[in-house]
Amino acid sequence: MESPELKDLVDSLGEGQGAHSAGAVGEIHAADIATALLDVAPSGQALLLAILDDEKASEVLALAEQPLLEGLLERLDPGRLVRLLVAMDPDDAADVLEELPDDARQAAVALLDEDTRRSVTLLGGYEHDSAGGVMTTEVVAVGSNETVTSALGKLRDAEQVEAMGSTFVVDPAGCLVGLVDLKCLLNADPDVSVGSVMESDVLSIDAEADQEDAARSMGHYQLTSLPVVDGSGVLMGVITADDIIDVLEEEASEDILRLAGTGVTHPTAERLLTRLVARAPWLSVTLVGTFLAGMLIEWVETNWFTLPVLEGLGREFKSLLYFIPLIGGMAGNVGSQSSTIMVRGFATGEVDPLRPGRVLPGELILAVAIGIMSGLSVGAAIAVVHSDQSWLGLVVGVALPCAVFVAGLVGTLVPFACHRFKVDPAYASGPFLLTLNDIAAYVIYFSVAVVIMGALEVGGLGSA
Amino acid sequence: MESPELKDLVDSLGEGQGAHSAGAVGEIHAADIATALLDVAPSGQALLLAILDDEKASEVLALAEQPLLEGLLERLDPGRLVRLLVAMDPDDAADVLEELPDDARQAAVALLDEDTRRSVTLLGGYEHDSAGGVMTTEVVAVGSNETVTSALGKLRDAEQVEAMGSTFVVDPAGCLVGLVDLKCLLNADPDVSVGSVMESDVLSIDAEADQEDAARSMGHYQLTSLPVVDGSGVLMGVITADDIIDVLEEEASEDILRLAGTGVTHPTAERLLTRLVARAPWLSVTLVGTFLAGMLIEWVETNWFTLPVLEGLGREFKSLLYFIPLIGGMAGNVGSQSSTIMVRGFATGEVDPLRPGRVLPGELILAVAIGIMSGLSVGAAIAVVHSDQSWLGLVVGVALPCAVFVAGLVGTLVPFACHRFKVDPAYASGPFLLTLNDIAAYVIYFSVAVVIMGALEVGGLGSA
Repeated sequence: MESPELKDLVDSLGEGQGAHSAGAVGEIHAADIATALLDVAPSGQALLLAILDDEKASEVLALAEQPLLEGLLERLDPGRLVRLLVAMDPDDAADVLEELPDDARQAAVALLDEDTRRSVTLLGGYEHDSAGGVMTTEVVAVGSNETVTSALGKLRDAEQVEAMGSTFVVDPAGCLVGLVDLKCLLNADPDVSVGSVMESDVLSIDAEADQEDAARSMGHYQLTSLPVVDGSGVLMGVITADDIIDVLEEEASEDILRLAGTGVTHPTAERLLTRLVARAPWLSVTLVGTFLAGMLIEWVETNWFTLPVLEGLGREFKSLLYFIPLIGGMAGNVGSQSSTIMVRGFATGEVDPLRPGRVLPGELILAVAIGIMSGLSVGAAIAVVHSDQSWLGLVVGVALPCAVFVAGLVGTLVPFACHRFKVDPAYASGPFLLTLNDIAAYVIYFSVAVVIMGALEVGGLGSA
Repeated sequence: MESPELKDLVDSLGEGQGAHSAGAVGEIHAADIATALLDVAPSGQALLLAILDDEKASEVLALAEQPLLEGLLERLDPGRLVRLLVAMDPDDAADVLEELPDDARQAAVALLDEDTRRSVTLLGGYEHDSAGGVMTTEVVAVGSNETVTSALGKLRDAEQVEAMGSTFVVDPAGCLVGLVDLKCLLNADPDVSVGSVMESDVLSIDAEADQEDAARSMGHYQLTSLPVVDGSGVLMGVITADDIIDVLEEEASEDILRLAGTGVTHPTAERLLTRLVARAPWLSVTLVGTFLAGMLIEWVETNWFTLPVLEGLGREFKSLLYFIPLIGGMAGNVGSQSSTIMVRGFATGEVDPLRPGRVLPGELILAVAIGIMSGLSVGAAIAVVHSDQSWLGLVVGVALPCAVFVAGLVGTLVPFACHRFKVDPAYASGPFLLTLNDIAAYVIYFSVAVVIMGALEVGGLGSA
């Protein structure tokens, strides 16, 4: 789906030229332009949007994701913004408006024509992830008393061509009462009422319902479109199956990445800091949790009773044991975050399985950052709690970044290796990797302990 | 989506009656019938299928998933099977035929009318997960020289109403050359050629391409339908967005569950043995891997050099250390398998987040089975390898089932608890659970060791 024209264009934009390419870029699909813009500097992005005609520019804006969209909006003059919003589907316009700062949004809404304003205000009122939030209001609805001829006329004038396979039928109050498919309209006597040929058994969904419910309904009943109604049954819009593709991809990404303890991160599109922040919360929970667990075991062991198996062990050695889960847990989590991000990236097309070099540096920088920060904090915490055992803080503080780095490296590369050898990366990246990282962490931890304890001449093992 | 009629019907089928409900069940959507049949005994399933008219029965058969479909086919007489196959979309018919034993399939294909036979033979030739495997061959195609009137006539007679929003245009050789949407046809001069009003810039996909590529294309370009062509550009069929919903759900389930080291399992629909087999391979890898790793560390430690930190430790204690990764790894894996299956089940609607009682027994039985089998094997292996330390085999053999049982319990219940307290189960089930199970396994292991070593009076700790 990458065209040579697009590559030329992006290159010329990189050099500050490109205004002469306006003709060529008009031929390229807006979705490809939006993707290509991710590789272009902000000034180039604005330049490209400027040379596109309104129709294409509105499509690009509607398809742009968060960070790109924000950048484009910042550099767009208000007059053109309004023109582009009017040219979009109202549901896309409502999404774009949501990205604007409050005052800019109000200014833009005030300049819209009344139809568009009503639609975006209505759509803006729904949660982003509700049925109302993903529907489009451009739906063909005919009254049940209208004739077949009049229904075909409405189809002829409709703006939305996506969901035209079926037309929804409403009563005088606007409530959804049925559905009539195109084949039926084309075959029916032109003068009979739509109500007499419609199917009255029509599934719909409440506008407040979760978008996941809409997706599940459409999957379960194999629908290409699902009408959306308000609490009293009035037809508000329609969800088409292509909207649901986005919903499903988004929900699946969310679930997969959250199971690996990271927010949704786009490994090629987002700043490293954003990705660090997405991954940090659960790593912190693991770090604090395993640290406290270690402390608890030590406290129980010291104050309540000495486990017979541990009896006779040197205090130094026992202290080492308390932090095994911390090292293993952190390495396991960082590794499975990296591998899960890769596996999901392969599935959504965001990561090229043939080019590990594009993502590896970023993942390693993140692993180093996570390792150093967590190593420093735990090392310091141990040195404070065990003020007489600062060597232990040093051991954990050194072993943790090493284990995390190895886990990040292995976690990133194993999915690529699997792809290379035609093993499903998802299969091999899960438990296999976790076990590998667990064992590696365990070996690294004890090796670091041996070296540091040897160097500092900490010992007394076995001397109870 | 559950109707009271359906519930009554299922109940009456359970009692061996229900033939009188034929009228009522005709009103129910085939997708709901297929779902409800999962709760009915095989004889009841066959009875229900028998009372449905051919149209509804063919829909149910087309929607039935693996184990149900197999059961239904076993009890279906060949004559009716052929009638139902002809009534289905050819892509569904091809999928159903694939489930039949070779001889039954050949017999059924021989009885099909020529059109259907050609379609299913063509479709059956494609990989199940290729674009050709998910497309339908019922596509409206018009020649570029035909008039608009003739194109509208073809639409009027079309069997497939799903993808009618746009009509594909082909040249005399059958190659795809363009697309014309319905609005355009309705507005065009009836006597001009379709070629003069069509859009020639049409995206298509090769029939051999992966279904994931089709899904990605449709998502990226926001398409409701995607034409499928063969190597020379001849139009073979069309993929509609609702087919892609299934593809995406299937692919996402595969990725999510494989990351957790289990094949696709349907926690409410499949036999326990099937689910055990799906989960076993990676658990075995973990078990053998961590066992060998433990042995390796011991061998290095015994034959190469004694780690200074371990110097002075009793042999018994050192032996205990070698199996920490095994216990932690197994508990971690079983726990994340259970939690991932729940999280995915919530997302696909297969597991009711309000009724943990429906799935908990199954998960616990599996955990017990996995725990006992792995405990016995590892325990025995240790007793063989360390014939003088059979107490160690006993410790690991007892601790492993305990840790795995706790992990299965916690892994199953945490997602339900998260749902209850409105935390995203995916978020909380990942690293949090892993850490929890790691710590629990560690504590269980040492506690079991204390009890068993105490009881057997194994000791000598600290006596180098």
